[in-house]
Amino acid sequence: MKINFRHEIDGEKIITAIAQDYKTNEILMVANMNKLALEKTLKTKKVHYWSTSRKKQWLKGESSGHIQKVKYIYVDCDMDAVIIKVEQSGVACHEGYKTCFFRKINLNNNINIEDLKEEDIEIVDERLVNPDDIY
Amino acid sequence: MKINFRHEIDGEKIITAIAQDYKTNEILMVANMNKLALEKTLKTKKVHYWSTSRKKQWLKGESSGHIQKVKYIYVDCDMDAVIIKVEQSGVACHEGYKTCFFRKINLNNNINIEDLKEEDIEIVDERLVNPDDIY
Repeated sequence: MKINFRHEIDGEKIITAIAQDYKTNEILMVANMNKLALEKTLKTKKVHYWSTSRKKQWLKGESSGHIQKVKYIYVDCDMDAVIIKVEQSGVACHEGYKTCFFRKINLNNNINIEDLKEEDIEIVDERLVNPDDIY
Repeated sequence: MKINFRHEIDGEKIITAIAQDYKTNEILMVANMNKLALEKTLKTKKVHYWSTSRKKQWLKGESSGHIQKVKYIYVDCDMDAVIIKVEQSGVACHEGYKTCFFRKINLNNNINIEDLKEEDIEIVDERLVNPDDIY
C-alpha cells in the first residue's frame, strides 16, 4: 500500500492536503503536497506543502511564523488525499483570518460564478491579524 | 470576483471541493469540480463532482443513492477551493464508511510512504454498509 501521487498539476505529482484544527474540526486551508512535502511533514511534524503557483515546496509559516504542528494524519480510500489535524500557531490565512474559508456563498441568489457580486458573498469570519504585520 | 478554476488536471480546469458534515464538521471526502459541476451543484443543491479518473461529471450518489444535500458553501481566499457543508444520505465512502478518511497514519513509526506496512495504518472508523449492497 502506498500514498498515490496520481494527480499531476503543471508537471508535479501531488496529493490534496486539508489542514483541520485538531480541537474544533474547523477546516483551516487546503493545498497540495508532493512526495517531498509529505515526507518533510512526517519527519519534522510541521506541515509542508507544494506551491503550485511558486512551483516550490514550502514550510507553512516560514515567513509569517504561523506554523502548523502535526497532531494526526488521516488518508482517504484512494490514498490520494490526506487530512492533517494540526495545532495552528496564529492564523492559517495569509489575509489574516483563522481559516482561509472566511467567505460564504449566498445560496439564495441566482449567482454567476464567473461574475460574483457583493451580495453573493458574505465574510463570516473575523480578521484577527493585519497581513501587513506578518509578511 | 470569480471562482478561479486555475488548476488543470489532465486538461480539465478544476477547483478542490471538500464535503463536510454540516452538523458534526467531520470531513467526508475531497474531490474536484469543474465549472459545470459547481454550477449543477448550485442549481440542484445536490453535490456534483468532476471525476479525474473517469473524466466525466458525476452526481454524488447517482449509483449508490447516497447523495449529498447542500446546506452551505464556503470559498477560500484564493477562490480556488470550496467547502460544501452537506447533509449526507447513507455514507460518503464507496467502501462503506461514513467518511473516506477512515484510515489514520501511525506517526510513531519511521514510515516509507511508498511502501506502507500494516502497522503504519490503522482503520479508525466503522464500516456501516457493505459496498456490494450499494454498487
